[in-house]
Amino acid sequence: MTAEWIRWPANVLARYGGRPVAFGGDYNPEQWDESVWPEDARLMREAGVNLITVGVFSWSVLQPAPDRWNFGWLDRVLDLLHAQDIAVDLATATASPPPWLTTRFPEVMPVDRDGRTMAQGGRQAWSPSSAIYREHSLVLVEKLAERYGEHPALALWHISNELGGHNSRCYDEASAVAFRSWLKERYQGSLDALNSAWTTSAWSQTYSEWEQIQPPRVTFTDSNPTQVLDFDRFSSDQLREQLRAETAVLRRITPDVPITTNLVLFDAGKNMNYSSWTDDMDLIASDHYLRPGPDAHVELGFSADRARGLAKGKPWLLMETATGATSWRPVNPAKRPGQLRRDVLSHVARGSDGICFFQWRAAQAGAERFHSAMLPHAGADSRKFREVVALGKELASYADVLGSEVVADCAVLFSEEAWWAADRNSHPHNGLSYMETALGWYGSLRDAGVTADAVPLTADLSAYRLIVVPMLYLVSDEDAARVAAAAEAGATVLVTYFSGIVDPLDRVRLGGYPGAFRELLGVRVEEFAPLPAPERVEIEGVTGPARVSTWHEEIDLTDAKDEARYVGGDFPGAPAITRATRGEGEAWYVGVELDADARTRLVGVLAERAGVTAVPPVGGLDIVVRRSADHDYVFLINHGDTAATVPGSGTDLLDGSVHEGEVTVPAGGARVVRRGR
Amino acid sequence: MTAEWIRWPANVLARYGGRPVAFGGDYNPEQWDESVWPEDARLMREAGVNLITVGVFSWSVLQPAPDRWNFGWLDRVLDLLHAQDIAVDLATATASPPPWLTTRFPEVMPVDRDGRTMAQGGRQAWSPSSAIYREHSLVLVEKLAERYGEHPALALWHISNELGGHNSRCYDEASAVAFRSWLKERYQGSLDALNSAWTTSAWSQTYSEWEQIQPPRVTFTDSNPTQVLDFDRFSSDQLREQLRAETAVLRRITPDVPITTNLVLFDAGKNMNYSSWTDDMDLIASDHYLRPGPDAHVELGFSADRARGLAKGKPWLLMETATGATSWRPVNPAKRPGQLRRDVLSHVARGSDGICFFQWRAAQAGAERFHSAMLPHAGADSRKFREVVALGKELASYADVLGSEVVADCAVLFSEEAWWAADRNSHPHNGLSYMETALGWYGSLRDAGVTADAVPLTADLSAYRLIVVPMLYLVSDEDAARVAAAAEAGATVLVTYFSGIVDPLDRVRLGGYPGAFRELLGVRVEEFAPLPAPERVEIEGVTGPARVSTWHEEIDLTDAKDEARYVGGDFPGAPAITRATRGEGEAWYVGVELDADARTRLVGVLAERAGVTAVPPVGGLDIVVRRSADHDYVFLINHGDTAATVPGSGTDLLDGSVHEGEVTVPAGGARVVRRGR
Amino acid sequence: MTAEWIRWPANVLARYGGRPVAFGGDYNPEQWDESVWPEDARLMREAGVNLITVGVFSWSVLQPAPDRWNFGWLDRVLDLLHAQDIAVDLATATASPPPWLTTRFPEVMPVDRDGRTMAQGGRQAWSPSSAIYREHSLVLVEKLAERYGEHPALALWHISNELGGHNSRCYDEASAVAFRSWLKERYQGSLDALNSAWTTSAWSQTYSEWEQIQPPRVTFTDSNPTQVLDFDRFSSDQLREQLRAETAVLRRITPDVPITTNLVLFDAGKNMNYSSWTDDMDLIASDHYLRPGPDAHVELGFSADRARGLAKGKPWLLMETATGATSWRPVNPAKRPGQLRRDVLSHVARGSDGICFFQWRAAQAGAERFHSAMLPHAGADSRKFREVVALGKELASYADVLGSEVVADCAVLFSEEAWWAADRNSHPHNGLSYMETALGWYGSLRDAGVTADAVPLTADLSAYRLIVVPMLYLVSDEDAARVAAAAEAGATVLVTYFSGIVDPLDRVRLGGYPGAFRELLGVRVEEFAPLPAPERVEIEGVTGPARVSTWHEEIDLTDAKDEARYVGGDFPGAPAITRATRGEGEAWYVGVELDADARTRLVGVLAERAGVTAVPPVGGLDIVVRRSADHDYVFLINHGDTAATVPGSGTDLLDGSVHEGEVTVPAGGARVVRRGR
Repeated sequence: MTAEWIRWPANVLARYGGRPVAFGGDYNPEQWDESVWPEDARLMREAGVNLITVGVFSWSVLQPAPDRWNFGWLDRVLDLLHAQDIAVDLATATASPPPWLTTRFPEVMPVDRDGRTMAQGGRQAWSPSSAIYREHSLVLVEKLAERYGEHPALALWHISNELGGHNSRCYDEASAVAFRSWLKERYQGSLDALNSAWTTSAWSQTYSEWEQIQPPRVTFTDSNPTQVLDFDRFSSDQLREQLRAETAVLRRITPDVPITTNLVLFDAGKNMNYSSWTDDMDLIASDHYLRPGPDAHVELGFSADRARGLAKGKPWLLMETATGATSWRPVNPAKRPGQLRRDVLSHVARGSDGICFFQWRAAQAGAERFHSAMLPHAGADSRKFREVVALGKELASYADVLGSEVVADCAVLFSEEAWWAADRNSHPHNGLSYMETALGWYGSLRDAGVTADAVPLTADLSAYRLIVVPMLYLVSDEDAARVAAAAEAGATVLVTYFSGIVDPLDRVRLGGYPGAFRELLGVRVEEFAPLPAPERVEIEGVTGPARVSTWHEEIDLTDAKDEARYVGGDFPGAPAITRATRGEGEAWYVGVELDADARTRLVGVLAERAGVTAVPPVGGLDIVVRRSADHDYVFLINHGDTAATVPGSGTDLLDGSVHEGEVTVPAGGARVVRRGR
Repeated sequence: MTAEWIRWPANVLARYGGRPVAFGGDYNPEQWDESVWPEDARLMREAGVNLITVGVFSWSVLQPAPDRWNFGWLDRVLDLLHAQDIAVDLATATASPPPWLTTRFPEVMPVDRDGRTMAQGGRQAWSPSSAIYREHSLVLVEKLAERYGEHPALALWHISNELGGHNSRCYDEASAVAFRSWLKERYQGSLDALNSAWTTSAWSQTYSEWEQIQPPRVTFTDSNPTQVLDFDRFSSDQLREQLRAETAVLRRITPDVPITTNLVLFDAGKNMNYSSWTDDMDLIASDHYLRPGPDAHVELGFSADRARGLAKGKPWLLMETATGATSWRPVNPAKRPGQLRRDVLSHVARGSDGICFFQWRAAQAGAERFHSAMLPHAGADSRKFREVVALGKELASYADVLGSEVVADCAVLFSEEAWWAADRNSHPHNGLSYMETALGWYGSLRDAGVTADAVPLTADLSAYRLIVVPMLYLVSDEDAARVAAAAEAGATVLVTYFSGIVDPLDRVRLGGYPGAFRELLGVRVEEFAPLPAPERVEIEGVTGPARVSTWHEEIDLTDAKDEARYVGGDFPGAPAITRATRGEGEAWYVGVELDADARTRLVGVLAERAGVTAVPPVGGLDIVVRRSADHDYVFLINHGDTAATVPGSGTDLLDGSVHEGEVTVPAGGARVVRRGR
Repeated sequence: MTAEWIRWPANVLARYGGRPVAFGGDYNPEQWDESVWPEDARLMREAGVNLITVGVFSWSVLQPAPDRWNFGWLDRVLDLLHAQDIAVDLATATASPPPWLTTRFPEVMPVDRDGRTMAQGGRQAWSPSSAIYREHSLVLVEKLAERYGEHPALALWHISNELGGHNSRCYDEASAVAFRSWLKERYQGSLDALNSAWTTSAWSQTYSEWEQIQPPRVTFTDSNPTQVLDFDRFSSDQLREQLRAETAVLRRITPDVPITTNLVLFDAGKNMNYSSWTDDMDLIASDHYLRPGPDAHVELGFSADRARGLAKGKPWLLMETATGATSWRPVNPAKRPGQLRRDVLSHVARGSDGICFFQWRAAQAGAERFHSAMLPHAGADSRKFREVVALGKELASYADVLGSEVVADCAVLFSEEAWWAADRNSHPHNGLSYMETALGWYGSLRDAGVTADAVPLTADLSAYRLIVVPMLYLVSDEDAARVAAAAEAGATVLVTYFSGIVDPLDRVRLGGYPGAFRELLGVRVEEFAPLPAPERVEIEGVTGPARVSTWHEEIDLTDAKDEARYVGGDFPGAPAITRATRGEGEAWYVGVELDADARTRLVGVLAERAGVTAVPPVGGLDIVVRRSADHDYVFLINHGDTAATVPGSGTDLLDGSVHEGEVTVPAGGARVVRRGR
């Protein structure tokens, strides 16, 4: 992590003799009696904490009334942290407006698709299109920047919090007005262009005045899909506008302080087109909370790899995660023994140059009182706190890894716009899930021992031997051409069903599916044949015998070879998986939903043909390599129940042990081994 | 189909040398560049299309602003079709109002029971009680009638589209006002009469002014059931008023052009009392979309038989169906090989004198872009289009069948009002479904080889040997008496549990269940005993051993004989199925929910006793006979996986093959065989 | 039942030669033609009815317009009943306002959390905070009291009906205003105190003006939990205010007539803190409707024991129950043969000095038309009515039991506030259910042969040998101390997981779980480990081998001994169940969710150690003893399929049979045996 991403204060640099691996979390001192604070600071230092986020939800305390400001407490908090050589990630405190704002200006409150006003009393009770909110929030940001811009502990600005995590789609009047302005710009003031783009002639929706256009509020039937898609884009852009507006204030007053905002890189963050936000951020910061279940570590890996993809391969920062249970899932299980360390190292392995938690001290009250923390309800005399202390110590030993980059020659393409468009109703199979499909292929890559980048469509694809394109329902001509060009240039490209179907206006590409990829893949499909549960069809070929569910289709080969065929069913003998040679590369198409085993076998075949690095997996071992100018850092994380041994040599960064020829990782344990290049 | 139902243009009659089997579909040229239209017209002709519906959702294009009209494009479309000898079913275009109307008059938009306004952006965003909508829609109808009434291609007026398909229950203020007027008329201006009819003394609901009456908006508890039932009636009547109002305009301007509107004859059409609409229609037109699942063809048959029932046995027209997948179900499977032909012939067999599809050309955009069409996304070079061309050719060969009527001596009684009243909460078992019950008995008739009419309660019952009355929860004294009279006259009547329970005001008939049918059936039930899943009870008798679920009851015989008895359970030895002799006929009662096999065995027994025509089913063969003055047309449709052979003789209408003594239908195939009478 | 609870009219006392066991039900003559009433009165007398509730939903009939009153019909009803020596429980008729009130003052109607107005047309369409409703309702009460206060049939006032059964949580503006007033009083006018109590610093919710405070209306996220809890308290208090306001009117005009209101003592009554209402009632009256399923009688027993707990051990009255099916459940099964008698006696056994039904005559119309009654739709010539007649005769033979009290040395603590707080989201496991947990332990006590009281936290605990504290998530210091004191004094106390977690402001008690009980139990838990289904972990020890689900945790012993340990899982060998000696008693902790069998085995061990009376259960026999000064009345109710014989002697109150040494109860039957003390 370079200096400009976190402006480490001098005393922190002195404490570590250089830049440290970031370690810390959110801190909400305003929820506690001031008498508790010194103990907090002392325990933070004991735990090896060096970066603390404060102020995230402090607006109502900082500005308890329109004309009343209350900064003294925050002054003292920053001084206290600074005295312990701890850097501060200072939030702009705009995440949730105070009750006086929503009481005085009820129009600030969001309205949902059903017309319900989302009241104060929760969080994020503001419409991103509210000019009143915007104005008041910027006054607050200015006040904070002016007061703390020169504070020696200030290392980073933290804009808002999980922007759009709840309020990403608002249907209030301010949103309607702003939507029209956004559309006027997008369609260059031409209502004809909009009517054409939205195909408003369907279902009698032609607009003759801009004022007739509304957000896609609740209707009896599905809304116009292009209207919804443009509203999705608008909504993401409105959040980015808030990010930009706050950034502008901060840049003006504190031009040298880096700025970030914490992204929600899992399902809950679906509604934000983050790949269009990254230019507005100095540091990619991600919040990640495990989802329960056996494949939790697959989703963790994918989230971390998406963060790295957004960071264009550079290091990033895990800004929030949990030491144990979350509090907002239906059931919030604890972490298993050793899991906290494995999870944390999984993020670092994938490029995070630090680990921060929500939150430092477990809340005693409020809706998040059962969320785990670094310092639990039980207090410092607890297993959890001792585990945190050990983790802080361990991370400090990894400073050498800082700035190194992950080695991957495989990419999974991921597009938020395709996600929005794919997960809609009135589709051939409404049960399809873009994210689950991407996770499925990502998990198979992982099972096949392949480290993958998860990258936006705009990423540079030239370095990848294998490019996986899962269910890219919506794609522009340009992006489709870049995928084709990668194949021509030698990559192996894999495209899965329901890809290339529509253009960026959600208009079906005519002439046969999969539209944008028809030529690349050398196939043509005339009709989708989704399979309602529990229907299954057998195939055989490159995957070996397999049963497919959910989706199949009759594929006509126009310029490709079949690699798997249906056995029985409606299309006996017809192709289910195909391969085409394209220039120096290959283009594969999978027209069926494979089960996980068959998918992994297929990935194995492709990896071998493409010549990508694949480490045959041993037990539950997850292996990722970060590379610096001089060294490789091999992260070996053992999710299994037995020790795992793999070939390799190097020095363990934590315990200093030297490994020659093979490295053994105990059950549930992990090693970070450095080797020369 | 007689001349007055579709006024075929002279060039179409010339093209076929007489009236043709109608073949065509919806066409939405306004969604396409005009350059595409000539190709459309040419391909339509190639496919044998002779009837095209245009204008269904064209309001916003025809009248883009209150004072702006745009007819030129439609002129050109009609001319183009006419040039290809294609008749036009011209929609009145009132199905969905343009955005300018709902923007200028937001009170046009429907409000649902929860108080949510249903916005523009979907379809049918109009309250049937809106005077503003009514006024504007009639201006449009008048304009269309005046402009196109003399167009040589005009064969039929198509009022609105699936009236009430979405907006059948509206709770806006205009609906409240109209509801009061409707009630004043129904109760002849007497609030006392209304209070008495609704039993408003229950739960303190007595009205002392008409203005106090509201639609049954959302309440903590169930609403007053009679209020709901009257609101159901009112709502259906309001839709019929729109139908009548548009009809009046058309009749005035184009008195010679027949008029129809397309009915929704499956679950989605529950809210319309179609049996009260038929006098307002020159032609019964039905929309039918398969529901997925193994019994799809049973539901198809029942829908078609309901259409024929509404047409009083005369031919009708399938106005919309799908060549393949729908787009609005959770999963939209394709049709299996051969299924399109079998489905289409199943409708023709049951009296449809034509087949039209939604839609001609698959949409590229809009909420229905994944709905199948005659011309798919893949284009004319596709299996689907070739199948459509073959179908058009085949249907042309069936002109001889036109006007013939289906032969059936069994009827299933079906009542929309009973449907509304039966499928309510606060019932003994809220899981009961009127439609599923009717379908269950209908399917058993079919499995027993019995062709049935599905008729309204007002139908002439004199020709039926077997009359099935499934779960007729609500029935008037008059209708119950007509059923009893049919038994007296010699019919075998079967009544199932939860029938005859309430009068038309949803008031329980006292003295014992099944109320209105107690005397006819000779039984008396004091208490319902629904069976929560998974409880089951065994019976034995006429059905053989069987296990019943969902419902049973202790039946006292007052003037009947038991035909099946409980084994074990709470009523061991008590009757479960009974039979009474009545005049020349019999009256059976089934007080339990039978499984499908036992139900079919029972139907077999009844069919035999009643002497109805039952063709022992062979394999998956569905056999229906249409009869003209001189011929029988035997439709043999094989849903099975193997060829089926049945006794019979005649000439195949399609291939001209002559069959003597037996007819063989290949697996998945169909034949229409003509034989002399 | 003492004279002051029901002021029996002289003619009723003369009819029975003293106070009778109350027997009767709700009667809604206004739903019937007056010609039916004399038959009703005659059949009531025939059935042994002596107490009839009238007027519950009569407001709109009594006051059909603001300035119109209509009492004549009610005069005649009361006279008619009185002439048959039947006492009247006269409702204040305020349960549901008439349409003219909600039409004239729409602000009376409740608004739900989502902002939906709950319309008239159901019942309870009034906000408890509406001043308009309050004013009008009190005028009505005054009118009734003045007119009927001296009527000779009047035995009891029945305020409203199931107060809060539907409208317990209202979010209208009047509620918002009243909530602020309530808060001002609770926090003594200090907004700082409120901000601190609610921890409004979390999520930026600090209030700077009272007017900013709102009910917890719908938000994107969970609301502030303390806000919700205070709103729960406020809402229950508002209902109590209505109870008090009506009581005040009645006390002023008819100071000698006892007053009750019927409580909802099952799940549907969750929202009312009844333990805070009992001082406002002369008689605890309970409504109870069976929930379907095999454990229905367990829930019945618990409900009856809660009623007795609210009555402080004194007799109470079952004001409503069903002779057969309810009408508001998804499936409403009939009662099994003999079940009505068993259910009724189960209530009497647990302290009810009477049995009343909803309702006398089955409704012909309205939302409750399928609810069972004493006089069914079938009429008097019916099994049901004959059963009711027999029941009336039997109950009359139990007059000797009146006033006797149930013998129990075990208590289950039950707190409505803990219920509200425990059943929330954002908890470690949102699937936990306070009521189901209490029922589970109560059922195990019953299976172990232990009769238990179900008592509020404020109950006198000194007489109990065994005190079960299921999932008491929220508890005050004082209440926790009373539990600890009971253990010190010799009781065996059992506390289950997720108890003692928060203080009355829903703030987590720090330092380790289970907070308030940590010292009493001698254990400390640092982290919850809920088990998502289907995860299970094995334990062994005092329960024998058992598999636990849903919840476990790692327990540290600070001053206790382990009684069961985990086998395998994440905490092998760690304690799962613990025991601590405290003074003369013991304190047990169960940190896991046991299956029913293991729980019952554990209860058996505790009962034996505690020396509580436990009658080894024989077959399906339920045994409860009521005790008067001279006698024990042993209720033996056989839910099983075979006769059951137990040791015992005495005289059967119904048939006069004398039993020496053993008593046999036939399958499905019951006996009430009197023995001397």
